[in-house]
Amino acid sequence: MPDAEPLAEPLRSRWSPMVFDPGHEVTDEEVATLLQAARWSPSWGNTQPWRLGVAKRGNGAHRALVAHLTRGNSRWVPRASVVFLAGTQVAKDEEGNGPDEPTYSYYDLGQAAAHLTLQARAMGLHAHQFAGFDHEAVAAEVGLPPYVRLVSGIAVGVPGDPGLADERERAKEDRERVRRPLADIAYGDAWGVPWC
Amino acid sequence: MPDAEPLAEPLRSRWSPMVFDPGHEVTDEEVATLLQAARWSPSWGNTQPWRLGVAKRGNGAHRALVAHLTRGNSRWVPRASVVFLAGTQVAKDEEGNGPDEPTYSYYDLGQAAAHLTLQARAMGLHAHQFAGFDHEAVAAEVGLPPYVRLVSGIAVGVPGDPGLADERERAKEDRERVRRPLADIAYGDAWGVPWC
Repeated sequence: MPDAEPLAEPLRSRWSPMVFDPGHEVTDEEVATLLQAARWSPSWGNTQPWRLGVAKRGNGAHRALVAHLTRGNSRWVPRASVVFLAGTQVAKDEEGNGPDEPTYSYYDLGQAAAHLTLQARAMGLHAHQFAGFDHEAVAAEVGLPPYVRLVSGIAVGVPGDPGLADERERAKEDRERVRRPLADIAYGDAWGVPWC
Repeated sequence: MPDAEPLAEPLRSRWSPMVFDPGHEVTDEEVATLLQAARWSPSWGNTQPWRLGVAKRGNGAHRALVAHLTRGNSRWVPRASVVFLAGTQVAKDEEGNGPDEPTYSYYDLGQAAAHLTLQARAMGLHAHQFAGFDHEAVAAEVGLPPYVRLVSGIAVGVPGDPGLADERERAKEDRERVRRPLADIAYGDAWGVPWC
């Protein structure tokens, strides 16, 4: 990805591996630092709608997640050292606090996920976000209140032996990373007129 | 913010200034690098729903934005060196491509905004996101199609003379940065049971 070359670390080397090392463990201190990265994200009116479940091998949140992954994700997600269940407050809680509608709840959760992901990269870890799991079943098992919606999982770990991957995963892992041309996403004076 | 201390740069020193230096300019190359940071964000199925308008002093997008800022934002936003109008594809386009519903469009735009913001910090710049402007009026003036929704503005520049701020801005600028305790946003085995 030559046009990512001007980017600063930890952005420049960020990508989403699918083959994590199943023997690697993160410490509680590392998990805490990743959570702090999400916590210090900016948000609309500093509302901080994000809520993060820590799913580590052996705990209940991890069991709930692993039981409800899609078939494709059930191969690679369990190899991650830790998975964050990323939820966000989309409606008012029992006390009437919270948003009227969820647009900025999703936007701000995305920001928090990005901060966590980039902090992971700065710590020598990699993150791979995914949405393929039965959100309602996991939410029910971990006891999520109705005003918090589970949006994604953020798998964190270190890359593992490529031999662990099946053929389909290896093809995904090896494919070139692509993005739309800048001219298709960035506009100047008027929408549709490329910025550059 | 002592508990942000373990965070890596550019996350650690990120904050959202309100007093930008109105004499500072960014180069086209800097704008391009900021756009590349957004472009290389991860997204759901690599759909890349983000669309970014570049509003620089003197161009049409900037005039459209400045004319429709809320009263509070109309003081400080024009002092920024460049403002990115952050939109995202929330429905199918004329060719039937695009999402059925916008949850991940907002989430992924938030990620792209975070990547741009952190890249700015790594370049010695600061970013301040805001939502206080007449989104529909600006969208109409820049000719946004109906399937792209404007969500936020990202003002980028360098901090300016605090004397430029009025009393209300100075109070905001000087207040301590606060976040909910980690125990309120991070859970372990079950939602509601603090992780740490």
